[in-house]
Amino acid sequence: MTLHNHQFRLAARPVGEAKRSDFEFVEEAVREPADGEFLVRNQYVSLDPAMRGWMNEGKSYVPPVGIGEVMRAYAAGEVIASKHDGFKIGDKVAGVFGVQEYAISNGKGAHRVDTGFAPLPVYLSALGMTGMTAYFGLLDVGEAKAGDTVVVSGAAGAVGTVVGQIAKLKGCRAVGIAGGADKCRYLVDELGFDAAIDYKRDDVRAALKRHCPQGINVYFDNVGGEILDLALAQLAMHARIVICGAISQYNNTTPVKGPSNYLSLLVYRARMQGMVVFDYAARYGEAARELGQWYAQGKLKSREDIVTGLEKFPETLLMLFRGENHGKLILKVAPTPTPGGTP
Amino acid sequence: MTLHNHQFRLAARPVGEAKRSDFEFVEEAVREPADGEFLVRNQYVSLDPAMRGWMNEGKSYVPPVGIGEVMRAYAAGEVIASKHDGFKIGDKVAGVFGVQEYAISNGKGAHRVDTGFAPLPVYLSALGMTGMTAYFGLLDVGEAKAGDTVVVSGAAGAVGTVVGQIAKLKGCRAVGIAGGADKCRYLVDELGFDAAIDYKRDDVRAALKRHCPQGINVYFDNVGGEILDLALAQLAMHARIVICGAISQYNNTTPVKGPSNYLSLLVYRARMQGMVVFDYAARYGEAARELGQWYAQGKLKSREDIVTGLEKFPETLLMLFRGENHGKLILKVAPTPTPGGTP
Repeated sequence: MTLHNHQFRLAARPVGEAKRSDFEFVEEAVREPADGEFLVRNQYVSLDPAMRGWMNEGKSYVPPVGIGEVMRAYAAGEVIASKHDGFKIGDKVAGVFGVQEYAISNGKGAHRVDTGFAPLPVYLSALGMTGMTAYFGLLDVGEAKAGDTVVVSGAAGAVGTVVGQIAKLKGCRAVGIAGGADKCRYLVDELGFDAAIDYKRDDVRAALKRHCPQGINVYFDNVGGEILDLALAQLAMHARIVICGAISQYNNTTPVKGPSNYLSLLVYRARMQGMVVFDYAARYGEAARELGQWYAQGKLKSREDIVTGLEKFPETLLMLFRGENHGKLILKVAPTPTPGGTP
Repeated sequence: MTLHNHQFRLAARPVGEAKRSDFEFVEEAVREPADGEFLVRNQYVSLDPAMRGWMNEGKSYVPPVGIGEVMRAYAAGEVIASKHDGFKIGDKVAGVFGVQEYAISNGKGAHRVDTGFAPLPVYLSALGMTGMTAYFGLLDVGEAKAGDTVVVSGAAGAVGTVVGQIAKLKGCRAVGIAGGADKCRYLVDELGFDAAIDYKRDDVRAALKRHCPQGINVYFDNVGGEILDLALAQLAMHARIVICGAISQYNNTTPVKGPSNYLSLLVYRARMQGMVVFDYAARYGEAARELGQWYAQGKLKSREDIVTGLEKFPETLLMLFRGENHGKLILKVAPTPTPGGTP
């Protein structure tokens, strides 16, 4: 039996938004796993704003995806062949498996998940890297504590929805900034945010003042740009700004807009700190336990926005940058039928 | 006996650089100190970049100087009359006494100094707020420790010279950024910096790479602007950026230039934090002891750039923003002779 794999490989470094021609959609035969390896059939592929950064040349927090390499992505699926002691056929797993139908893994960065506890896509969302990012960013870097006012941008996105919910669970006031009335309603009515600001329609400066009368203690930033500046203008003393991302800037063909109001850091003796979830690998278990408990108790909701069809990857990725997703954006892999294979 | 005081009072909020017409030079009679007050004859007035910020309307880390009020300044002088238990005639004192010849103080923020230990101007410099700023900024906010590479901008200025010297005393590598070959030579030859970068002539980006091959662990920023961006591009992992000031931006009539490279905070998991020396008031004694010890041992040099004549205040202040001072800029008060007074 020969399995055929379909993959998106990086063909060119995008200028501005990534477009289909920046990738090559390739078919190749799946090889047998070697000793210490296993073979995963991907069922869900996580789409993340960070992917845009991984396509750029140059030094960053991870090496860029090389030209000709399979596009890096978190994914979740099922082990269908194994020569690895830690993973056996039928195991459900999540890891950095790439934008492809099948992946060979040596187990590094991969872990088994329990689909009896939560559906597979949730392990790419609130119970996956997304949830970990929110958890450690808010609690460790942001040092959020009961009574704090927490503001999160990109609040209706994957990380943002979890940040706001954890903030509430920890006794904070949670204010989300998102684009559109629907998203804002969702944050307040479904997720229990104290307030939501629609950056497309509201006067964000005035709304931040109104909703954060004591100032912002923790600003969790996913977007950068103008909104970061407006948040800087409304800090409380000793505020913490968590730089998780800057989605408004990733497709820039001009220099990133630096925060003009950065001297607020001095006025408010505040700090701005970057975070990358990988640094917390040793503590994932701790977060997984607490997030899992909340999830089981119905106190933490995970919302996925699932698009079917691996081949739609380039266009679906753009939804993130256009704010078209509601919750965690995920591609569902419906394997391309190939001769001889019954995946 | 009637003493006459000469003072600079703020007459208008400056647009861009502060000019003489933004102040009023006023003469008025000195009143007797009331119970709990004492009268100081100022001998030295400290000129600081922060003064420019104090002249602006609006919320900052201290209230602005009001229109018609004496311009705020640190100063040092002698007590010449007292109804305060803690200060007696003949005491040498430093405090926020303003840009004037005589000041009435209730003792708040004032402290006696020992001119047997160091000349009076040094208490406005390495052993004064300047030294405290360098000390707490570098060691507390910057968490500099032996082996770190410390880069300081405005390195030949008052705070910068002390930052670099403390860095060396604590076992760090000290790299200064300053304007002009003379200043750079002074930093290396006289103060023991490991390297100095002349931003007026050197390629700062290349020089930072050369002098900080392991990256910058602590960047102590006094200038902001382009140099902050270049430093951000050369950070080491978990770097600390101390925002002490942004002298390149204080006279802007356009928005402050935000740091385009702030996403380096994410790449390097670095933090950028503002500091205001007042917050450390409870720990001034600790810093004064260590700085004093180094000073007595000849390990900490204090350099003052002294201009004589209170009436030269507006023009002298501009020297700071033009980088014309070498070390701490101080006005020496040569009291204007007034009828009936022999100050």
